Amino acid sequence: MATPLEDRAMDRAIELALRGAGRTHPNPVVGCVILDAAGEVVGEGWHEVAGGPHAEIAALAEAGERARGGTCVVTLEPCNHVGRTGPCSLALVAAGVTRVVIAVDDPNPEAAGGIATLRAAGVRVESGVRQEEAEAGNLHWLTAVRRRRPWVIWKYAATLDGRSAAADGTSKWITSPEARADVHALRGTADAIIAGAGTVLADDPQLTVRGAAGAAVPRQPLRVVADTAGRTPAGARVRDGAAPTWVATGAELGTGADGRVDLAALAAGLYARGVRVALLEGGPTLAGGFLAAGLVDEVVGYVAPKLLGAGRAALTGAGVPTIAEAIGLDLTDVTRVGPDLRFTALVRQKREG
Amino acid sequence: MATPLEDRAMDRAIELALRGAGRTHPNPVVGCVILDAAGEVVGEGWHEVAGGPHAEIAALAEAGERARGGTCVVTLEPCNHVGRTGPCSLALVAAGVTRVVIAVDDPNPEAAGGIATLRAAGVRVESGVRQEEAEAGNLHWLTAVRRRRPWVIWKYAATLDGRSAAADGTSKWITSPEARADVHALRGTADAIIAGAGTVLADDPQLTVRGAAGAAVPRQPLRVVADTAGRTPAGARVRDGAAPTWVATGAELGTGADGRVDLAALAAGLYARGVRVALLEGGPTLAGGFLAAGLVDEVVGYVAPKLLGAGRAALTGAGVPTIAEAIGLDLTDVTRVGPDLRFTALVRQKREG
Ligand SMILES: NC(=O)c1ccc[n+]([C@@H]2O[C@H](COP(=O)([O-])OP(=O)(O)OC[C@H]3O[C@@H](n4cnc5c(N)ncnc54)[C@H](OP(=O)(O)O)[C@@H]3O)[C@@H](O)[C@H]2O)c1
Ligand SMILES: NC(=O)c1ccc[n+]([C@@H]2O[C@H](COP(=O)([O-])OP(=O)(O)OC[C@H]3O[C@@H](n4cnc5c(N)ncnc54)[C@H](OP(=O)(O)O)[C@@H]3O)[C@@H](O)[C@H]2O)c1
Repeated sequence: MATPLEDRAMDRAIELALRGAGRTHPNPVVGCVILDAAGEVVGEGWHEVAGGPHAEIAALAEAGERARGGTCVVTLEPCNHVGRTGPCSLALVAAGVTRVVIAVDDPNPEAAGGIATLRAAGVRVESGVRQEEAEAGNLHWLTAVRRRRPWVIWKYAATLDGRSAAADGTSKWITSPEARADVHALRGTADAIIAGAGTVLADDPQLTVRGAAGAAVPRQPLRVVADTAGRTPAGARVRDGAAPTWVATGAELGTGADGRVDLAALAAGLYARGVRVALLEGGPTLAGGFLAAGLVDEVVGYVAPKLLGAGRAALTGAGVPTIAEAIGLDLTDVTRVGPDLRFTALVRQKREG
Repeated sequence: MATPLEDRAMDRAIELALRGAGRTHPNPVVGCVILDAAGEVVGEGWHEVAGGPHAEIAALAEAGERARGGTCVVTLEPCNHVGRTGPCSLALVAAGVTRVVIAVDDPNPEAAGGIATLRAAGVRVESGVRQEEAEAGNLHWLTAVRRRRPWVIWKYAATLDGRSAAADGTSKWITSPEARADVHALRGTADAIIAGAGTVLADDPQLTVRGAAGAAVPRQPLRVVADTAGRTPAGARVRDGAAPTWVATGAELGTGADGRVDLAALAAGLYARGVRVALLEGGPTLAGGFLAAGLVDEVVGYVAPKLLGAGRAALTGAGVPTIAEAIGLDLTDVTRVGPDLRFTALVRQKREG
């Protein structure tokens, strides 16, 4: 049992962890508090940015000698591998910490093992403390690591009657400038932005984070085109120097039964590239492919208060033959964005990966 | 200028008027307060139900002799015609009222003229007092009377991606039992429920108010089928004895350029039958026809948090060729109804009737 003091320290560590939100991928957010032998807080740290020091190392640096005989309270199992920074498990042992309190075990096989190392060195370890709260702060990362594929958010824009373009193909602009600014902020939270060859050929989008959101991101997300036959033109804007780009072809990833890029392989390839959150921007065909494959975790829809009654649907070919098999969503938020509405929902997965 | 006392009496009259909401059509809601010569409230009345006494008559009955030399404060211009009750203008003169304060002039040519009659009898009349507030309480009725057609509410049910049925045609049930109960309550506020021949042939709906909402309505709305060629079967449920029915055919109303029932003539026919609020329940083709003709005033959409990606669209053929001509809506409400969302919006009319 964690003591009330340790529980409180864990709440604080969870708070600290969130300071890194959106900047740590492919790593999780982690927060850490060091208590001295008397239970006093002597060090605090968090993982600030991918490549920077781990939370435990930052907290130990602040605690210095006062860590000896003390307790380390940390939101994630200390890592055990020599990554960009040394293994945190050994650093804790070296600092003389005698107890480690953990919220969540590391699901990452390359990083896990920290608990065993600590125990082998005689450190008393307790894990599962405030686990639910800590998991919430790392939902996307934990889900991604457990499934070995990114958390995928499908974003779309449509009218209230579900159209993404009018009868003559025009679609600029269905939603408002406010909604478009919000999309840039959403892009800024992703490690990759995915579009289909259809959208690239039709609209030649740049797929970068721009405006105020662009100024705030530490780096541009990876741009990804699902492009079976490699039709993306050499001069496409998605290939400019503004951000890295991956044109994912059938030749590289293999194809599914429909002759198109194998999307599970695409998702695995994104994971291997360090992508933990991917924003799927469509269009309707690629979105249908991802949904049919069970690869979408969250939906963000920008819905304009307009009716068209004709024109391209927001979603096609999601593999749903009958009403009983409709893809169920759990709405988590509905917010007005300018004149439009933004829906956020979690996809109810039939099969958990 | 109305006195502060008269302003306050008008606020009360507006409040009284609303007690008749939903029960007075084809008449408006009306509230009335009688002040005696000293400015004391001596009578209150409202129009309770179509066929019942007008608000002024009820208020005068309560005031009795104390109305003499007093003021009548009423939300709508007193009527001037011998309808089910006598002309209110003459009743006020006979009761010895010397001043009448009115919020809204009667737009109904058969009823108007009350102000002129009162003035001719030497009564001091002031109108336009608290006009905006009083109009809000009679929005549907006033709009209907000014345009000589009902206020039309299009109700639909769809998934978040705008589908009303799945690929195989199944559509039961897209929305939840809670949403369906809410639809019955909505039906209970209408004087007529309209469906197209397509829906009648496909689903054989009864189009009545049922459940708790059914027990609360004073009478069932008129059931209307837009049925160019008179295809509604003799045994269709919409023809049962549960409510009156009008099968509106091309032979009766004429047809438009598309060879289908002239919807403006249908709307005028509804008005002539005393319908002031009509609920258009679809399907997608008839809704498109009404929207294309500029005959829809309000939209109520029940949206289920589900995705289909295939199947019938919620709306077709609304006459919108390009995005710039999308039918604009002003959202007035978004509410959760069970697991679903209910959108309420006013249609921005290009041309005002
Ligand atoms: N409203 C919105 O939110 C929104 C967002 C984006 C785009 N759009 C619109 O959508 C339109 C393009 O529609 P679209 O449906 O043709 O575009 P899309 O979904 O972007 O692209 C579809 C194409 O992606 C490729 N693809 C590769 N692997 C796939 C797989 N496994 N499953 C499905 N597709 C795969 C296919 O082409 P290959 O087989 O040749 O690779 C396919 O034809 C554009 O006009 C754009 O404006 C709207
Ligand atoms: N999800 C929902 O909210 C909802 C609501 C209602 C219905 N539905 C579904 O909609 C399906 C039926 O679709 P639908 O489009 O065939 O039905 P619909 O819109 O009810 O009926 C269309 C028919 O109405 C008649 N009509 C008469 N005058 C018209 C005019 N001026 N403009 C347009 N139509 C006119 C036409 O047939 P004639 O020319 O022969 O008269 C036309 O084919 C059903 O399966 C039902 O389940 C869904």
